[in-house]
Amino acid sequence: MNQNYIIPNEWSIIEEGFDPQHIKSSESIFSIGNGAMGQRANFEENYSGDTFQGSYIAGVYYPDKTRVGWWKNGYPEYFAKVLNAPNWIGIHVTVNGEELDLNTCKSISKFRRELNMKEGWLSRSFEAKLQNGTHIEVKSIRFLSLALDEVGAISYSVTPINSAAEIQFAPYIDAGITNEDSNWDDQFWNIEEIKQKEDASFIVAKTMKTHFYTCTFMKSHLYKNGQEIKSAIKHNQSENKITSSYTISVQPNDTATLQKFGGYVVDRNHPKNELGAAAMNVIEKATSFGFDNLLELQKEEWSKIWSMADITIDGDVKAQQGIRFNIFQLNQTYLGKDANLNIGPKGFTGEKYGGSTYWDTEAYCIPFYMATKDQEVARKLLEYRYRHLDKAIENAGKLGFSNGAALYPMVTMNGEECHNEWEITFEEIHRNGAIAFAIYNYERYTQDYSYIPEKGLEVLIGIARFWHQRANFSTNQNKYVILGVTGPNEYENNVNNNWYTNYSAQWCINYALECIDYVKINHISDYIRIKQKTNFTDEELGAWKKVSDTMYFPYSEEHNVFLQQDGFLDKELITVADLDQKQRPINQHWSWDRILRSPYIKQADVLQGFYFFEDHFSVEELERHFDFYEPFTVHESSLSPCVHSVQAAKLGRMEQAYIFYLRTSRLDLDDYNHEVHEGLHITSMAGTWMSIVEGFGGMRVKDGILSFTPQIPSQWKGFSFKINFRNQILKVNVCQGHTHFELDNGDELTILVNNKPVVVSPNKLVTV
Amino acid sequence: MNQNYIIPNEWSIIEEGFDPQHIKSSESIFSIGNGAMGQRANFEENYSGDTFQGSYIAGVYYPDKTRVGWWKNGYPEYFAKVLNAPNWIGIHVTVNGEELDLNTCKSISKFRRELNMKEGWLSRSFEAKLQNGTHIEVKSIRFLSLALDEVGAISYSVTPINSAAEIQFAPYIDAGITNEDSNWDDQFWNIEEIKQKEDASFIVAKTMKTHFYTCTFMKSHLYKNGQEIKSAIKHNQSENKITSSYTISVQPNDTATLQKFGGYVVDRNHPKNELGAAAMNVIEKATSFGFDNLLELQKEEWSKIWSMADITIDGDVKAQQGIRFNIFQLNQTYLGKDANLNIGPKGFTGEKYGGSTYWDTEAYCIPFYMATKDQEVARKLLEYRYRHLDKAIENAGKLGFSNGAALYPMVTMNGEECHNEWEITFEEIHRNGAIAFAIYNYERYTQDYSYIPEKGLEVLIGIARFWHQRANFSTNQNKYVILGVTGPNEYENNVNNNWYTNYSAQWCINYALECIDYVKINHISDYIRIKQKTNFTDEELGAWKKVSDTMYFPYSEEHNVFLQQDGFLDKELITVADLDQKQRPINQHWSWDRILRSPYIKQADVLQGFYFFEDHFSVEELERHFDFYEPFTVHESSLSPCVHSVQAAKLGRMEQAYIFYLRTSRLDLDDYNHEVHEGLHITSMAGTWMSIVEGFGGMRVKDGILSFTPQIPSQWKGFSFKINFRNQILKVNVCQGHTHFELDNGDELTILVNNKPVVVSPNKLVTV
Repeated sequence: MNQNYIIPNEWSIIEEGFDPQHIKSSESIFSIGNGAMGQRANFEENYSGDTFQGSYIAGVYYPDKTRVGWWKNGYPEYFAKVLNAPNWIGIHVTVNGEELDLNTCKSISKFRRELNMKEGWLSRSFEAKLQNGTHIEVKSIRFLSLALDEVGAISYSVTPINSAAEIQFAPYIDAGITNEDSNWDDQFWNIEEIKQKEDASFIVAKTMKTHFYTCTFMKSHLYKNGQEIKSAIKHNQSENKITSSYTISVQPNDTATLQKFGGYVVDRNHPKNELGAAAMNVIEKATSFGFDNLLELQKEEWSKIWSMADITIDGDVKAQQGIRFNIFQLNQTYLGKDANLNIGPKGFTGEKYGGSTYWDTEAYCIPFYMATKDQEVARKLLEYRYRHLDKAIENAGKLGFSNGAALYPMVTMNGEECHNEWEITFEEIHRNGAIAFAIYNYERYTQDYSYIPEKGLEVLIGIARFWHQRANFSTNQNKYVILGVTGPNEYENNVNNNWYTNYSAQWCINYALECIDYVKINHISDYIRIKQKTNFTDEELGAWKKVSDTMYFPYSEEHNVFLQQDGFLDKELITVADLDQKQRPINQHWSWDRILRSPYIKQADVLQGFYFFEDHFSVEELERHFDFYEPFTVHESSLSPCVHSVQAAKLGRMEQAYIFYLRTSRLDLDDYNHEVHEGLHITSMAGTWMSIVEGFGGMRVKDGILSFTPQIPSQWKGFSFKINFRNQILKVNVCQGHTHFELDNGDELTILVNNKPVVVSPNKLVTV
Repeated sequence: MNQNYIIPNEWSIIEEGFDPQHIKSSESIFSIGNGAMGQRANFEENYSGDTFQGSYIAGVYYPDKTRVGWWKNGYPEYFAKVLNAPNWIGIHVTVNGEELDLNTCKSISKFRRELNMKEGWLSRSFEAKLQNGTHIEVKSIRFLSLALDEVGAISYSVTPINSAAEIQFAPYIDAGITNEDSNWDDQFWNIEEIKQKEDASFIVAKTMKTHFYTCTFMKSHLYKNGQEIKSAIKHNQSENKITSSYTISVQPNDTATLQKFGGYVVDRNHPKNELGAAAMNVIEKATSFGFDNLLELQKEEWSKIWSMADITIDGDVKAQQGIRFNIFQLNQTYLGKDANLNIGPKGFTGEKYGGSTYWDTEAYCIPFYMATKDQEVARKLLEYRYRHLDKAIENAGKLGFSNGAALYPMVTMNGEECHNEWEITFEEIHRNGAIAFAIYNYERYTQDYSYIPEKGLEVLIGIARFWHQRANFSTNQNKYVILGVTGPNEYENNVNNNWYTNYSAQWCINYALECIDYVKINHISDYIRIKQKTNFTDEELGAWKKVSDTMYFPYSEEHNVFLQQDGFLDKELITVADLDQKQRPINQHWSWDRILRSPYIKQADVLQGFYFFEDHFSVEELERHFDFYEPFTVHESSLSPCVHSVQAAKLGRMEQAYIFYLRTSRLDLDDYNHEVHEGLHITSMAGTWMSIVEGFGGMRVKDGILSFTPQIPSQWKGFSFKINFRNQILKVNVCQGHTHFELDNGDELTILVNNKPVVVSPNKLVTV
């Protein structure tokens, strides 16, 4: 744990007291978003101290020219960057001629921030003594509307305490912004139009190269003690910024408030030559609601989200705060409204990892969205990959594959690969497996087979073709092998026969063949269409099957375990427990070659396979592999502890499971990895949810039946979660000694609890 | 072959006819150098067409900030760049008011360049019709003096043919130059002083960061039909350039000639605050000799070099031209005068590979310098590494090694690592083996053991310590293994147990132990000094020995060969002959992962080990390994064909040996790799020498005795070479059917010819 200043609270994230050292961390933690846009918790007023300004629009990125030491054939030309978008939250605040700036005040007291997760708003309040002696109280509240997702709202109040004061609010929009993360310090935005109309302001800007057009807008209203004041507004316009000034004189304890609406409209949703009109339309709608009504709507929308997604933990406030923070941030990042969007590893809270889509979505996020949203949302996430199938085929083509073989990109914004370390981009091909597995997982959970004939099967065929071509027959092993890969454990590069990759490849081929057979019998017209489109032949399917049937898997007779890859046992097998703790995390202390030749595992690799394909292995096999690999695992990926927590729970090792859970649930709040200032670990938050629902709750779907094996950490009195299972909401409440199940509507549902059938009827509590 | 315009000639490189497409290639091929400086064959007069301007000073480099995609611990902060130095060759030539520029003339005829390798000068002549109608003949001759290695000389003549002409020569020095190869477009030079004195000009500039001070200078003299003219000289000075103008009016067929001396003095040889005086001193010396005498001296110096280093080939002019070109360029690059200098892969002919020192020096260049120069030269090259031992220990420390373990850098200017691909920098550790082997090779050839107690042993101890720590005991193999390396074949990365690396490691330890024993008995005071300095103990030596005694080597029972690395046989073993020829060279057609998982070998790897350690293996073993690996070798490194040529000759496969020889000897003249415009492949030129002397000549030192097994390609009538063996020059002249040996001085020498002793007496031809 690297920080401990967040005040425990069941529903809110709270910071009290002003500490400049916490600014960048809090800017990440208190981030707000509504799926369409998001922003770090930067102050509205000017702040001259150390800060990381960030405001981001979903789907707006920049193809930053790749930077490498030595170019290699096949490298993508660019690395997509999430773009810092024009700032619309800014308000210059001047009190008796002095600009408010928390970095230059004489003193600050009663500083408090609250991110209210239940209702979806961010507030801040403090008292400040300015250099000119004026003593003021400031309160602000801000939210990004879920109801009108192109708009955000700010209410910013100043109350002079010791004297009358002339207060000037100068809200602005500013397109003169830069990225923290940029390869060549290129200019990313080009300003197309900057204008002011009916006291509203607009800047139309387009991104360089990608030519995304956006209109950033604002309109403000001034109030004195709650009464709107129609003061003279002065507008000021420079090359890339518009400022409007509102001046008011108030007596001591009078409150001057500026309410500001602002946000973005983008050409993904509107014709690019009508962005100004669209923005004006949004402003009018927001103004007609008014700040208070819009805030009420916000609370309603969040209430709906929580009604399906909430997890309660009884008897552990920090754990409760942690899990709600994870669920809240996931929902701020992606709500499933737009199949063009996806889930970036840092959401809207920072710029690292380019804001792009990784295999994290399929491997970690889909279970969460599938169980806490309408199942259309998970389907949209699958469709995202279907829409990128042509690009995945093109990508595989660049690496020498043919005949419709598809390799999905490691990192992408639009289906094109945009990562450029050869050992990742070219070799971390197991991502294809997770993308196929997500299709299976969706079908298993929802029983919505329709996705497969409609779209999924084409993806599965492209992926099966890739594996068929990527494996080669080794006369030496008399088996098919897969050489030169990087598995999920990125602390190994360019290894031969990574067990997880080989196993995924085999499974992908088998699943594709199975789906082809099923679609042929049950969806004949889709079958004919797909067969014509993809031109597969029986001969080809036979060739796939040969690869799958004779796939090689590295195995140790001595340890009776599958080996993570060929040669793993040649390493110096010193467990993490016996490693000098001063050397940890090894990625901050060791050179890359030393990490690579060590036995240390960054994140679940063989165990990731046991997680995906758990039905293929006995509990004894899991235990053996867990006991063999976990001692070498350093968990230096945020995606590692969750899988281990689920597996430990399955093995009935609840103490160990709980320790892994703690590590994932408050990773950012307590800043375990000392990097929260860069942004939050959004995709691993879905892993936290997994630890509770699949780990402690033991939720699975077995032969089409929903199943639970509830367990509870001894530290907790109880915990509950809700899931949407095939359009019915089931609430599961696990207590020490028993579990309650409750169904909200529909037909009765037979579930398995500890492998015994239990019938749950709507609105009737069942206790097991 | 990508070009075929160089005119075959035994002693000269000749180009006839002006073709702008050849400019950059010819700028590389016609490069001149004198060990202390060098330059591409840029025109003296202005040329507005496509050109790559380059002038380089030995040992003057710039630590260009490293560029990588993702930073990894241990990466060096900088990548050293050879620096394009201020231009001193430039002469603006104006004829009747029009500036001469071959890119804008009306017509050009009789264009001819000659690089006279026998005498060490570059000439150029042509006739040009200017846009203003003037028809002129131009002749220039240029050389970098071996006798005074800080100075170069140009004689530049213009003769109007059809009319009288006013000719203006405006020689200049220009420090406003940039690098072709630069990561961040930084400015590399800072100008300290720019001045003109006694008709000579000086620019003192220092490199940024490294603070190398250089003074670039020039002084010119004007002649008419060979008579010096004292005309009024106008000097013109800008921020980074000084120009002097000489104007003369001449009648048709009168010749106006400018003779220009120029060059550099550097603070490696002079106090930095006396560079101006040093430059003036050089100018005075050069002027006192005069152009013609300096040129005579040049011929003498080159005559001395050839008397020791020449190889003649009878009956094949192109082969003769090729081998002399190789020998000539090696001598232009490095003459062994300065232990601070070394041999960059492109010498003074381009900027790629940063002009730095690679393992090429030890693996390929030392045999050439050892046999064609005084043995002090090879010793200086060894000392270069001794002087860098502390930095090698520091470098190993950065990668986690301790106790004086030394890892020499992959690429260096001053002993620090300056390359940043992890798979090379951190993993291509076999370079340590070549550096140790060079010490052995020197001792074997010269019988000068003194280097080992004086310096070499400390290097060997540091290297042995590295291998001891870098290997780890595998309980699985019950042997020591070396994991995560890149061997000489860079088409494999991060492999386990590269046979060549493991074998080198074992040999290094054994040789270090052997030398410690020998020094202990024969050089006791050195032994005591070294033991105190390095603190080795008997226990430590025992630990090394354990590693060496139980080293693991990958081996195939089936093929009865050592495997290049673990898992090599799992590859799809399609030979190069069966590879689609359109896919070649694979490094231009395949993505990196495809190259890595293929069986294709970039350059000799196992066979490199059989080359170094040939006494350890029988001819049958060599044959088996050659037949196994050569079919997979694509020779996409310039360093590959030479080793294969030597091995094929050893196996008596002269046709194959000859094909490999051809590929290496005219690599640049015929531009096999389509990259000669970037510069020449200097270090592989030593491999060409090796192919003849060690390959066809079969030269070895066996148990201290010089030995030959002469063979001759059927295409040749004969070939001869000279070697300096322990301060005696032996000439070997191989003809079809017999070989002549002749010794120049000293005692009689017993050599082995085809394993039979032959006594060679001074100045007495022996025919075998």
